[in-house]
Amino acid sequence: MKIFHGLFQNNFSVYSQIEERKVLAERWFRDLRDIICRNFVNLERDLHSSAEFERKIWQRNGGGGGEISLLTNGRVFEKVGVNISTVYGTFSQEFAEEIPGTSNDNREFWASGISLVAHPLSPHIPTAHMNTRMIVTQKSWFGGGADITPCLSNIQLVEDFHNAMKKTCDKYNRRYYNCFKKECDEYFFIRHRNEPRGAGGIFYDYLNTNKWNHDFGFNRAVGESFLSIYSSIIKQNMTFGWTEGEKEIQLQKRGRYVEFNLLYDRGTRFGLMTGGNIDAILMSLPPIATWPGK
Amino acid sequence: MKIFHGLFQNNFSVYSQIEERKVLAERWFRDLRDIICRNFVNLERDLHSSAEFERKIWQRNGGGGGEISLLTNGRVFEKVGVNISTVYGTFSQEFAEEIPGTSNDNREFWASGISLVAHPLSPHIPTAHMNTRMIVTQKSWFGGGADITPCLSNIQLVEDFHNAMKKTCDKYNRRYYNCFKKECDEYFFIRHRNEPRGAGGIFYDYLNTNKWNHDFGFNRAVGESFLSIYSSIIKQNMTFGWTEGEKEIQLQKRGRYVEFNLLYDRGTRFGLMTGGNIDAILMSLPPIATWPGK
Repeated sequence: MKIFHGLFQNNFSVYSQIEERKVLAERWFRDLRDIICRNFVNLERDLHSSAEFERKIWQRNGGGGGEISLLTNGRVFEKVGVNISTVYGTFSQEFAEEIPGTSNDNREFWASGISLVAHPLSPHIPTAHMNTRMIVTQKSWFGGGADITPCLSNIQLVEDFHNAMKKTCDKYNRRYYNCFKKECDEYFFIRHRNEPRGAGGIFYDYLNTNKWNHDFGFNRAVGESFLSIYSSIIKQNMTFGWTEGEKEIQLQKRGRYVEFNLLYDRGTRFGLMTGGNIDAILMSLPPIATWPGK
Repeated sequence: MKIFHGLFQNNFSVYSQIEERKVLAERWFRDLRDIICRNFVNLERDLHSSAEFERKIWQRNGGGGGEISLLTNGRVFEKVGVNISTVYGTFSQEFAEEIPGTSNDNREFWASGISLVAHPLSPHIPTAHMNTRMIVTQKSWFGGGADITPCLSNIQLVEDFHNAMKKTCDKYNRRYYNCFKKECDEYFFIRHRNEPRGAGGIFYDYLNTNKWNHDFGFNRAVGESFLSIYSSIIKQNMTFGWTEGEKEIQLQKRGRYVEFNLLYDRGTRFGLMTGGNIDAILMSLPPIATWPGK
């Protein structure tokens, strides 16, 4: 009787701990979304634009859903989307094989996260991408990253972004930055053009050090430091004018962004091939892109 | 001795027959390219535009090459590319398995063809695609097709295009049109949006009736009748004005064209993944496309 009681307590406590963590993570992604949107709208106000985010809730067949926040035609952002989602259910047998912590008996999953892609109006401000997430199968881990794609050469800006990411990484583990920067460079590479998508940043997956608070702290810090450095980059560059030629360079660079996202991005391809929410998945595509062909 | 002589004659005659056919096919694709370019430039002249095709020759690592003809910023065509190519060599073992007439001992291939994608300036004129080719392994066959993607609804125009394709098909085989139309509809379908790419046309592959002249004749007729009906559609619509809203619809429709070509088109994906000529492969992408996100 005592043993049964102990087992029950233990199971119950493991159960409630992961459930509590899910709640905390989901709540954080929502809070971060709110902070980011407020921040970006304030940047629009600085340029006397009245652009606002529009919200769209979507449901997922099979369990869960999410909310897209989209701001278009701003003076800072030509298009910026912030998507939060919490989805759960059972992986297909085929997909489960690629995912840690699943077995033939148990292919259940839960995933929550935030994903952001910003396409600024000015070619002086880089396109930016940030995504952090928590995944739970029979294991649990964090993943995410942040990276920028400048159109015009600006060494200082790229250095500032990487320094901010490094500072955040270093607070948690002195090895993180080098390792996660390398993963980012390898992932965001346009193979058919033999060129990087942008100027990189950090990218990590399957992060579980057995110290959940540490890992969750790092995940939160990535989101916060991304917002801080990207806002700072925007403020430093948003009042500069640009030429038609500079805008054209931006539109062509965006064409390559489209090529990467549709040809190589695992999330985009997986989402589209498995009936995910199209608006949420294709939120990342630029408002306008060009392929002049020469 | 007589037997050897006979064998030699026979082999020689088979050899020279296929070589002669290769020459005829390659010459035709080049002739068709010239006819099309001349025709399209004349359409530009009708609108008092001095736009010209620019030519770019490319070599293929492994054997052969091609020539891109690209006209941009015309008054009829915002961008139109016509590519001819003749390539040969040895298929990779992996790819050879998908191709008829290859074996472990012999994975050699020869392929020649023409490929055209036209993105007109006017939203009243549909985007058009035409491609015909001859492939030789230890077997040989023709493939190709022609289809249009209107942005604005125009039932008559779509009917005219299909009638022209049907008329051409019917001259060769009364079953071709229904069969090739179905293949076209199935192939040019944007699965994640559950919608067709455009208004269809015809699409065929592995065409070999054992009457080479018949098959080659059909292949030529597809190119010729495409040029004839598309030129006629252009002439009927090229003088109409359009609203900003109609242009926006066109740019969004082009976004979906990009989605199809990068996510699903076998030729595009295969070409990019195996180090083909990027300019020739991505010639199909529109000059400008939009994803407004709502």
